[in-house]
Amino acid sequence: MQVTPPAILAALYAVLILTGAALLKLPVAAPVPISWSDAIFTAASAVTVTGLVVIETGSDLTMFGQGVVMVLIQLGGLGLMTFAVLVLSMLGLPVSMSQRIFLREDLNQTSISDLLVLVRGILKVVLACEAVGVALLAIVFVPEFGWGMGLWQALFHTISAFNNAGFALFPDSLSGWVGNPIINLTVPALFIFGGLGFIVVTELYAKRTWHGFSLHTKLMVVGTLALIVWSVLAFAVLEWTNPRTLGALDWGDRLWASWFQGVTTRTAGFNTVDIGGLHDSTSMMFMSLMVIGGGSTSTAGGIKVTTFIVLLLATLAFFKRRQQLHVFGRSLGPDEVMKVLALTMVSILTVFVAIFLITISHDGDFLDLAFEVASAFGTVGLSRGATGDLDGFGRAVIIAVMFIGRVGPLTLGFFLATRSKPRVGYPSSKVYLG
Amino acid sequence: MQVTPPAILAALYAVLILTGAALLKLPVAAPVPISWSDAIFTAASAVTVTGLVVIETGSDLTMFGQGVVMVLIQLGGLGLMTFAVLVLSMLGLPVSMSQRIFLREDLNQTSISDLLVLVRGILKVVLACEAVGVALLAIVFVPEFGWGMGLWQALFHTISAFNNAGFALFPDSLSGWVGNPIINLTVPALFIFGGLGFIVVTELYAKRTWHGFSLHTKLMVVGTLALIVWSVLAFAVLEWTNPRTLGALDWGDRLWASWFQGVTTRTAGFNTVDIGGLHDSTSMMFMSLMVIGGGSTSTAGGIKVTTFIVLLLATLAFFKRRQQLHVFGRSLGPDEVMKVLALTMVSILTVFVAIFLITISHDGDFLDLAFEVASAFGTVGLSRGATGDLDGFGRAVIIAVMFIGRVGPLTLGFFLATRSKPRVGYPSSKVYLG
Ligand SMILES: [K+]
Ligand SMILES: [K+]
Repeated sequence: MQVTPPAILAALYAVLILTGAALLKLPVAAPVPISWSDAIFTAASAVTVTGLVVIETGSDLTMFGQGVVMVLIQLGGLGLMTFAVLVLSMLGLPVSMSQRIFLREDLNQTSISDLLVLVRGILKVVLACEAVGVALLAIVFVPEFGWGMGLWQALFHTISAFNNAGFALFPDSLSGWVGNPIINLTVPALFIFGGLGFIVVTELYAKRTWHGFSLHTKLMVVGTLALIVWSVLAFAVLEWTNPRTLGALDWGDRLWASWFQGVTTRTAGFNTVDIGGLHDSTSMMFMSLMVIGGGSTSTAGGIKVTTFIVLLLATLAFFKRRQQLHVFGRSLGPDEVMKVLALTMVSILTVFVAIFLITISHDGDFLDLAFEVASAFGTVGLSRGATGDLDGFGRAVIIAVMFIGRVGPLTLGFFLATRSKPRVGYPSSKVYLG
Repeated sequence: MQVTPPAILAALYAVLILTGAALLKLPVAAPVPISWSDAIFTAASAVTVTGLVVIETGSDLTMFGQGVVMVLIQLGGLGLMTFAVLVLSMLGLPVSMSQRIFLREDLNQTSISDLLVLVRGILKVVLACEAVGVALLAIVFVPEFGWGMGLWQALFHTISAFNNAGFALFPDSLSGWVGNPIINLTVPALFIFGGLGFIVVTELYAKRTWHGFSLHTKLMVVGTLALIVWSVLAFAVLEWTNPRTLGALDWGDRLWASWFQGVTTRTAGFNTVDIGGLHDSTSMMFMSLMVIGGGSTSTAGGIKVTTFIVLLLATLAFFKRRQQLHVFGRSLGPDEVMKVLALTMVSILTVFVAIFLITISHDGDFLDLAFEVASAFGTVGLSRGATGDLDGFGRAVIIAVMFIGRVGPLTLGFFLATRSKPRVGYPSSKVYLG
């Protein structure tokens, strides 16, 4: 059979998107029927856990429709293949090697033998986190909306947050709870945990000491912390007196909003301030964070945090005239540099071509359009409002970018994971790049 | 002595800029005295052969002031160090090794021994080209402005074109001659020749057969042709019916303007249509061309054509799972990939930080501001009009970017030129990267 695993995986994602769109077209899914264009865009945004919207999830869809979106998010977030293998192994059926290879593809793993253990670990972690998330969010939503609706809100937003989907049932995302401590702590805890990647989470759980962590986990922890500190501080400084965002809030809420918006931007995509009201400088900073994205083997998009770190390390190493990159007592060889360069080039080209195509076909504000494309590539979902204005062609471009942002790095990851060579000097190590 | 050649070179450029600014402040240089800010910006733009302006060169400066700009362009374009060595050797003084190292730095050369030969070759080529250019442009300008003024116009625009400076004595650049065949052929011939780089030009002159060319020259010729074809065609298609640019012209002039704007954008910076009237898509394409720039060892800025080609080749090689890049029967090793990656990262960071700083301090249209920064980094000089509106801080940022665009790649080139290793397999080769 000549079809490659990446092609099959992409095809399966496409089938899931079309199935989801068909379900959203059912009369029971929306009070007023939505168009095929709306349905396909919404399904694609959910499966790729992006969160860009062309309809209001909370009002233009029924609870059934919202349920469809929620299931698509969970399936897309955890990965189709994980689910397929899980179902098979729960049914007691043998998991064939070819299916294991699909799973490897989906989770960007090199070693096949540990996969089933990994998958069971994933499921435990996901269920535990989501149970805790629902319980905590219910404290906020149940008093406000009653038991039935409150629990539904808690479940929907927990799944959306843990999978970094950024879908919310309110037109202004979570702006209504800009100063609520439970929302401001639970939602970020869910998406940071989800955005670190399963490898990192299970390793944090199993090893618990810095010395025992793999290079990948060390880089992810340090890189994520540094990016969070930078984005929270820069957002607060840039927007503190902007009357359309932080300037309208009291001091306590400004701090909460800075924290929330600083952590949510790289991939989660919730917002508690009006993204369309941001300064151009803040919008630009957000675009860079969205393109960097989250961790490999996570629900995040973008070029990934480790790729960004290796880019910086390679640049530094070059100026120090070193042949190899050294970090935490490990070396990264020329192969890794090639991978990073290729991934970065493909990412830049994708984002550039997408903005170019949309500006040819659509006459909107340049920054707003560029922002939506960066948001789609990072599968973030923050929006300055341009996505709703796009015509069919523009929507198709955004769908393609969301698809590449979600599937592309994984597909590239397939190439990344298949070649390894022994190194001399420092012991060699591997970093997940895409 | 602890001061490095790159630092001295940068200091010399700075001294030249300040001297030029002081001359432009003289009462004889301007009918109405210009501010220090205007004078420093103009001198920096001239020395870095960029061509961004905050005053009208043709009307806000006297002929003396225009002469200062012209000399600054020629000094900046040919390189200070070339001139210093030339003067010394013409005076019969021995050229010391340390001065030769400066020259190497300035021309991005590895071999010191051939430098004096190279410098004499450069001077011959420059004088020959500029003499032909003045004669041809005089055919246009003398009938229109009389002998004195016509020859002055011909001289100024020849020097500006050959050095890729983009300064013109008319407020709308060369728009008045949008359909003039002599202008449309002479000016591009001058700046394409100047933009290929001295190495390429002397090799084309000396070898004359494809087989005899170095890898660098082959890449430059193929890359330059491909970029010219792409930019001419894309510009024509995107702007054909835009009433603010090509749409206002007849068919013949549209073709001339497409040719001229397609070739001028990567580094020369002249224009025959209104850049502020371009579509957003065309502006974005222009920004990418400006960041790519021209050839190494030329008067061009940007990351350079060869760097761009190696970026593409490395990406392709990665997807073909090759360890080395092969092109024209030569290989490029991991060192080259590291260089390209470092140069690209530094360039992206420079452009990004500059746009970020300007958007923080200035409330203009985002695309216009980003366009000016890309123009400054590529030392191009095309403008959508935002540079004139910038405050002192914004001007300082643009000056810094022009300075980095001109000196930075050379300085980086110093690092690039000092490490080389033998290769196995394909014979190894060297490409000028910055
Ligand atoms: K998201
Ligand atoms: K120029």
